[in-house]
Amino acid sequence: MPVNLQPPVAADLFPVAGVRIGVAEAGVRKANRKDLVVFALDEGTSVAGVFTKNRFCAAPVQVCREHLAAGAGIRAMVINTGNANAGTGADGLARARRTSAALAKLLGLAEQQVLPFSTGVIMEALPVERIEAGLPAALAALRADGWALAAEGIMTTDTLPKAASRQVQIGGRTVTVTGISKGAGMIRPNMATMLGFVATDAAIAPDLLQDLVREAADLSFNRITIDGDTSTNDSFVLAATHRAGNATITSLASAEGQALRDAVIAVSQQLAQAIVRDGEGATKFITVQVEGGASEDECSRVAYAIAHSPLVKTAFFASDPNLGRILAAVGYAGIDDLDQTLIDLFLDDVHVARQGGRHPDYQEADGQRVMKQSEITVRVLLHRGAARTTVWTCDLSHDYVSINADYRS
Amino acid sequence: MPVNLQPPVAADLFPVAGVRIGVAEAGVRKANRKDLVVFALDEGTSVAGVFTKNRFCAAPVQVCREHLAAGAGIRAMVINTGNANAGTGADGLARARRTSAALAKLLGLAEQQVLPFSTGVIMEALPVERIEAGLPAALAALRADGWALAAEGIMTTDTLPKAASRQVQIGGRTVTVTGISKGAGMIRPNMATMLGFVATDAAIAPDLLQDLVREAADLSFNRITIDGDTSTNDSFVLAATHRAGNATITSLASAEGQALRDAVIAVSQQLAQAIVRDGEGATKFITVQVEGGASEDECSRVAYAIAHSPLVKTAFFASDPNLGRILAAVGYAGIDDLDQTLIDLFLDDVHVARQGGRHPDYQEADGQRVMKQSEITVRVLLHRGAARTTVWTCDLSHDYVSINADYRS
Repeated sequence: MPVNLQPPVAADLFPVAGVRIGVAEAGVRKANRKDLVVFALDEGTSVAGVFTKNRFCAAPVQVCREHLAAGAGIRAMVINTGNANAGTGADGLARARRTSAALAKLLGLAEQQVLPFSTGVIMEALPVERIEAGLPAALAALRADGWALAAEGIMTTDTLPKAASRQVQIGGRTVTVTGISKGAGMIRPNMATMLGFVATDAAIAPDLLQDLVREAADLSFNRITIDGDTSTNDSFVLAATHRAGNATITSLASAEGQALRDAVIAVSQQLAQAIVRDGEGATKFITVQVEGGASEDECSRVAYAIAHSPLVKTAFFASDPNLGRILAAVGYAGIDDLDQTLIDLFLDDVHVARQGGRHPDYQEADGQRVMKQSEITVRVLLHRGAARTTVWTCDLSHDYVSINADYRS
Repeated sequence: MPVNLQPPVAADLFPVAGVRIGVAEAGVRKANRKDLVVFALDEGTSVAGVFTKNRFCAAPVQVCREHLAAGAGIRAMVINTGNANAGTGADGLARARRTSAALAKLLGLAEQQVLPFSTGVIMEALPVERIEAGLPAALAALRADGWALAAEGIMTTDTLPKAASRQVQIGGRTVTVTGISKGAGMIRPNMATMLGFVATDAAIAPDLLQDLVREAADLSFNRITIDGDTSTNDSFVLAATHRAGNATITSLASAEGQALRDAVIAVSQQLAQAIVRDGEGATKFITVQVEGGASEDECSRVAYAIAHSPLVKTAFFASDPNLGRILAAVGYAGIDDLDQTLIDLFLDDVHVARQGGRHPDYQEADGQRVMKQSEITVRVLLHRGAARTTVWTCDLSHDYVSINADYRS
């Protein structure tokens, strides 16, 4: 069961002026389930995205990159679940193009104005004809308040839909930021993909959008890990419809820019953390905080070494304060000149290790108390500099193995 | 249960002239179990070693490095199981020194002539007084044919002792190479350490020994992974007593050098593979072979990405030919200019993927057949160059989680 995560309440998800969403059942992989989502974006909407660094990226990711680069103005997005169209070679690319072409035709757009996304089984042919057949129903269902339905329509092994929304005042106008996300990393035997879609009605200079989406990703979706496997389909897209009526934001450093930036980052972090809370077999939500690094890069290496260690993750699952494992992970994170005699380790408020050794006052009972919590913060002090970073992850449970060892079904 | 691994038969382990081994019960952590092993090496023996790269290396590892650097001539080694003396700070260092000093005193040696090794619980104080109390019994038990007992005496969570031995003819003389090993990587909640000890009676120029031990490690212990966690105590030592009567080997490139090299590597690989076969919860032995890389380094990155992927490992456990996961791991191995449309993937003799996509002739039934085997070879062709590498690993099972989630007991 997810860790302290509730399903979104439709009424709490503010519509974004200029964005309409339609959901349909196309039977891509299973009958009678919402598996096709269409976003229709008003003319003039600006769109930017970041995509998986996996060199085996899926066909739709390649098409998205092309279409965004074409600069024809993105007016629609089509997302299917059930099939990731990854590891499908040239044929997969053709099917991804055919999907966006089909939606473009129905909306009277150029093919380059549509972004296609897929999630699901890897290495199987995308049933593009079923998607084509389902598109009219999705378009007929277009509505401004479709966010909750869309969150449901992009789920794979997620046990709960994931959405977040907030409004902020910018220059006397109410600006809305709303988004949805799904499944972290490489999740089910052959379900791939983390997807994130965030839209705002803020008026903002289009050339700022790419910086904003990249920064938001770096502070949210790029800070979570379930099992360390990078999916072939990971995509995070930010759309701005410019409909809020605020004076166009021309700098992210301005007060208005900061306000929008903070809202987008907050929504993105909530969506990213929801993915970890719903991580496969997750029973605990772990925040790994590394401070005092010489660079943010080395802080990240230490944080991910801890967050990826199967030994650390199983210890959290067992509520076993077996904290030498965390020190060991710090030691192999790849900082060649690390001085172990400087390291401090905290588990929430408990000072576990000092100068690289067990803290004289540390009592196993204290570690035990914290390990039993459902939310735990691991804090490592490197004493090498002023850099710091935070990563969110979950524990490694029997259910993770069960879910991932299951036959594809 | 271990994968195709048998306990060593004492009679098959050839003694090494100049090496005597004594085993005792010191009650380091548990009563009534062999937990203390002493190696006594004849005068003139040459010793070289490679140790963990973990910056949080254990106290005994630091002492070993010092004593080997001192160049006083190593004459004895003392190994305890039950406590790793890691994450113990300055006090741990003092206890490691006290251990080697105690053995040195009993044998009339200088402290720098003794190498101490520890394996077991992390972040707990080494009960050095129990080790001191146990040393006389270990010395009283010194014998040339103690290899099998020693293999038992260094076990932690290993389910079987691990030993290998062979003899080769070099310059008309019979040369012996015998060794023992234990537990791979960071194994049990707080059992650390891979240990490997190999001895030969070959006469070889001492300055060749460091190259030989490093090459042997690179082709054996550095090619295996259970869970990707690098232990704080990993140590691999090679001793040469020069007693075989062969003309001293002055070059590893000579016929005699090659013969010794091959024997040492073969013994080391057998010891390393035994660790994987006995990996926690292992049900399958997986060979990951990456070919056609631009460099050996990039081949290793791809091989380890596959061997460390929890998704790939759980698929092997489930015998689920869910092979897109392997392609995905290839894709995130960190080769920035990887061209996915060139990649071939084989599972034993089955051609699964060609040009980055599913092979047209691939049948799931064929993948299924191979996945059911207890020994499987994954072969990836990158088509970027002539470099290649091989890594050995095991699957990720429910038992791995059970073993590592257990409370320390």
